[in-house]
Parts: sequence; C-alpha cells; structure tokens
Amino acid sequence: MNVPSDKALVPFVSVEDMLALIHRHGIRNCLAELADMIEADFKRWPAFDKTPRVASHSKAGVIELMPTSDSVDYTFKFVNGHPSNTKVGLQTVTAFGVLASVETGYPELFSEMTLLTALRTAATSAMVTRALAPRTAQTAAIIGNGAQSEFQILALASVCGINEFRLFDIESSATRRCIANLEGQSIGLTACSSIEEAMQGAEVVTTCTADKSYQTILTDNLVGAGLHINAIGGDCPGKTELHRDILLRSEIFVEYPEQTRVEGDIQQLDPDHPVTELRQVLTGEQPGRTSVDQITVFDGVGFAVEDFSAMRWLREKVAQGAPSEMLDLIADPDDPRDLFGMTKRFIHRAEQTA
Amino acid sequence: MNVPSDKALVPFVSVEDMLALIHRHGIRNCLAELADMIEADFKRWPAFDKTPRVASHSKAGVIELMPTSDSVDYTFKFVNGHPSNTKVGLQTVTAFGVLASVETGYPELFSEMTLLTALRTAATSAMVTRALAPRTAQTAAIIGNGAQSEFQILALASVCGINEFRLFDIESSATRRCIANLEGQSIGLTACSSIEEAMQGAEVVTTCTADKSYQTILTDNLVGAGLHINAIGGDCPGKTELHRDILLRSEIFVEYPEQTRVEGDIQQLDPDHPVTELRQVLTGEQPGRTSVDQITVFDGVGFAVEDFSAMRWLREKVAQGAPSEMLDLIADPDDPRDLFGMTKRFIHRAEQTA
Repeated sequence: MNVPSDKALVPFVSVEDMLALIHRHGIRNCLAELADMIEADFKRWPAFDKTPRVASHSKAGVIELMPTSDSVDYTFKFVNGHPSNTKVGLQTVTAFGVLASVETGYPELFSEMTLLTALRTAATSAMVTRALAPRTAQTAAIIGNGAQSEFQILALASVCGINEFRLFDIESSATRRCIANLEGQSIGLTACSSIEEAMQGAEVVTTCTADKSYQTILTDNLVGAGLHINAIGGDCPGKTELHRDILLRSEIFVEYPEQTRVEGDIQQLDPDHPVTELRQVLTGEQPGRTSVDQITVFDGVGFAVEDFSAMRWLREKVAQGAPSEMLDLIADPDDPRDLFGMTKRFIHRAEQTA
Repeated sequence: MNVPSDKALVPFVSVEDMLALIHRHGIRNCLAELADMIEADFKRWPAFDKTPRVASHSKAGVIELMPTSDSVDYTFKFVNGHPSNTKVGLQTVTAFGVLASVETGYPELFSEMTLLTALRTAATSAMVTRALAPRTAQTAAIIGNGAQSEFQILALASVCGINEFRLFDIESSATRRCIANLEGQSIGLTACSSIEEAMQGAEVVTTCTADKSYQTILTDNLVGAGLHINAIGGDCPGKTELHRDILLRSEIFVEYPEQTRVEGDIQQLDPDHPVTELRQVLTGEQPGRTSVDQITVFDGVGFAVEDFSAMRWLREKVAQGAPSEMLDLIADPDDPRDLFGMTKRFIHRAEQTA
C-alpha cells in the first residue's frame, strides 16, 4: 500500500477552511448554532471532566493547554497570550485544538481555533444575554471595539435580536473599523465619543477591552437599573473591567466559580461572595433575572467546555461537507504490535519507486 | 493576497515524512543523534519547567498531555494509552506533538510522535546504558519483543556498540518478527525459549513488556553481579516488571523522582528509598556505576523533556531539509487587531473567483 490507511488520517480544518465555512454557512448561522451547542453542553455540566487549564508563564506571555472531556469526546485547546506580539505584526492570541475519542484515544479532528475561539466567545456572551437580559432589550453598548467586537455584535444580533449598537473605544479608529466591517449587515451602529454616550439607552453592555492596565472601564454611576453586563475582557489575574461597587449591587453569573474567582472581575470580591453558575440558570435549578430593575453581570473568562462545544459543532460541519483536508498523523502499522515493520515497508516502497 | 502568509504556516511532519527521514538519514544516525540531544538536555535539567503530565482517565484508557519548556522553546505531546485498541486493529499508544516559541507563543513545528516517541524512548535507554553499564558490555537480553524491541536493539547497537542480543517473549511469534525485522543489520540475534536462557551471558537487560497483569518479569535469582537493567515497560501505577528484591540490592537511577515514584518500578519501594537522578550522573554531580559488581537499574517511565529533545532534533532536521509540509494553522490578519477583517477579505476573494 502506498497511501496511509483511513486509521492514519485525521481531518484538519485550516484557517482558509474555517473562512470558507463561515462564508458558505453564514456567520450568523454559525454563531446561532454555536450558542445552542454551548447551551446544550452547559446543561449537562456534571458530565464534564473540569481539569484546570495548564499554564506555562514566561516574561513574554503565557501558553495554555485547556483539556476537557465527557464520556465520549475529549478535547483540548492550545492557546497563547502574548500582548507584545502586535508590535511585531503577530496576533496576541492564537489557538488550535484537537478532538479525540475517549474510547480509543485517537484524534478525530484537528483545527485552527483562533477564528473558532472568536466565534465561541461571542456565541457564549449571546447565549448568556438571551438567558439574563430583559426580554425587551433592543440596544447594546459595546465598550472596546477590538478583535472581538464584530463577533460580539453579530452574535447578539443573531441570537438575541438586538439591532442597535452604540460603540466606544479609546481609539476611535477601532470604532471606525468595526463599523466599516459590519457595513451591509442591517445593524444600527452608532459611534460614540465617550462611555457615557455609548451607555445612553443601552439595556445590554458588553465590555471587551484588551488593555491590562486600563482597569475600570465601567464606573458605578454609569450603570442603571435593569442593565445586563457581559464583562468579557477581564479574564486573567490582575485584569478587570468593572468597578467593585457595580459588582456589589449586581447578581453575578459565572461559568465555573473555581476559575472565575481567580481570573474574572470577581477577583475583586471576597472569595465567598455569592455567585450563580450559568448552567444552573440554564437548567432551571436557579433563577436568572428575577426583576426588571435587577442588574445582571456575566463575568466571562472562557472555559474549556465552550471549546469542546465548538469542536463538536465543527466535527458536525465537517461530516456535513465543510472544507477540510486529511492529515497523515497516526502511525498505522499492518500489525499494531509491529511499529518497526512500517520503517521496513517504507524502505521497500522507496526501492520500488527508485 | 490569495495565499496564507508565512506567519500563518507551521511545518507539519506526517507519518510518511517521518518514515522518509528515518529512511534517508538512517535509523542508527537518528537514534545516535537523539541520544546525544537527550543527554545534552538532561545536563541542563534546572532550565526546564517540570509540569506534571495532565491525564484524563476513562474505563478504556488514558489521554495525556505532556508539556515542558525552557526559556526559548515550549513543547507538548498528546499521547494515549488504550490497551484494548489492538483488538480493533488500532495502536495501543499513538502520539503527536507541538513545538512553540516561548517568546511569541506561535507554534513552530507540528509532528506525528508515535514513531518519534519509539525513537526517543530507545535513544534514552541507550544513552543511560552508555552512562551506567560496564564499559565492556557486548551482550544484552531483550525481554519483551513487542513494538519497542527493534528500536531498543538498534539504539543499544548504535550508541553502546552492543552487538549480541538474546531475545525472549511469552509469544514466540513476537521474537520471530523482531529477528526478521532486523535482518541485514549485522547484529547477532538469538531467540531464547525462557527468560533464564535469554539472561545467559547478558551484561545488559532491557525489559519492555506491555502486559499490565504480568508483574514480575525479572526475579531475584536471575540477576547476577554487574548487570545493568533498563526497566522500560513498568511505566504506570500498578504496572511493574522487577521483583522488589532486585531493586533492594541495586543502585536505582531515574529521570525525575517525583514522577517515577508514582509510575515506575520503584512504586514498590518506600517513598524515601534512595534513588539517583540521571541528570546528576551525566553532569558528574553524582557517581554512576562505582564497581564492576554493582547492579544498576534504570527505572524509565518517559519524561516530557525527552519529547522536548526529540522535537528540537526534528526541527533541526526539517531546517536541514527533512520532508515536511506547511499547514495553514495560524490566522494572520493584515492588522492583528482586525481578526474579523479576514472573513470580509475571504468573501471578496470568493466573489472575485465566482
């Protein structure tokens, strides 16, 4: 045999393949399906192995492995965070991931995850907003108009039917780029010159800022009754976006308390400050919003289960014909106990070819 | 631009590429270079981040991530262990790995590691044998003639100049296959019908058995003065190969005591039983073999630093022209803050092409 067998091959979704999937399937469909997939997996939360992420820190940044599994599928994501990368024309955050079978340990999917993480992060915010924001919400403020902003806006539009967005960034060029990128999407987009202006009339606010040193994006006086806040940018120790006083008069919802108390905005609070797990709201075990005046905060940090859901979704898409290529990744000897025999057969093939 | 930029591309060494490298470069050269690379990295042991492996256990087996890094390079290996896989024609153990830059977090190499792990495991045993066995050793017994056996034999031949091997396996077909696979290598190979027979005249013995339930491969009466033992197969909790009494009268050498006391043959001993770290022998901080009569045991379990060395070696080979292909793995927007812009450009391209 001159070609690797089926057992050797693992589907690979490249960046170009992911762009093609987004283009063909429609980014709004992708975001809406991901939101449903993530919600479904949050509802069966106890089924997951919640291993903490494994971080390797250096002066320049961090490289993390984020594994999780249920009884059928295992996934992990490799993700880096290197703030100074942009100075040399590289991404601050890049990612790739693998889905493997728990039964055999064999990889079943290898994928770029820089784009897929952007999609799943936005889909998660939108899924949470659907569960917690006032049902009548029409207008959202987006504070921080960087790499996540367009994804967040499209997800809120697709999943929650929000169609008016008020944008602010300390760099007005970021706001202009965001608006230009979303031209033709039939979404109302207003550039604002201050956070105060962006908050006017907003029933939902998403903070997705990137600067580690800019610590209080939202101050207490800006936050009125009935608001739902997605605090997405405060996602590591030393990085927060909300003033502590906002948190003290809000109901706080988190992905996984053990992780969020270290990485999220609630690192500012006492370690026993009451928070509600999202999954409990989604299954109905705990109430979400209980009054129109309540302030609800989603303190999002990103969790491995969201990547798991995203990879499950992607595997479905690939099975349905989404673009991918096959990688010859797994050594597949004729006899599993005879790995060395592969090297001999290669030599025979090479001699025949020569 | 219709092609991904250089920053998007990561070299990938497939199974076929690895077979081609082994064929072109010669497996003995590969093993000898790997032994030197692993020795060099063991000598600078304190430079490494020694994160414990992250294991996900299920009824069917285990999936592990093995990360490590120095100040320049980060590597991790994905490896599974599923004993019942052979029943359905799959490998018990498969692996792949990634080498990334600590400075940027960007992946620099993605590779199959089923074959590469077989090479590095054998190279490690041989490197240790070179350091600990009697210098006059000519003959080795190989107990367990499964997937690792040919690699172990070729590594001992290449690195230590051992040229007589006495083979035993409870399945004689495994021994026959091993001998057939090594035909033409100018190595003396003798099939033996018992462990006792295999041990006759051996100055080195390598145990590389796979069966979890077959717990005492070497009994005390079989082990004479001056022997060097590589105990490779006992590598997880509940799996050992040497009778405890052998360990009690030997000098024991390990990769990393914290890991070996859990996974290695020394799990049978008190947690404070004295062992010597290999790296200390290699740097001269501690003596290795101190007399011709001494029994030395390498209780090998496999450590992430060995994979790190193997991936460094492979990166060198790829830089020198070893076969690989480029994977479009990293999203590379024109402006790093404009990830969404990539989806727009793709649409424009698609429209132009249509």
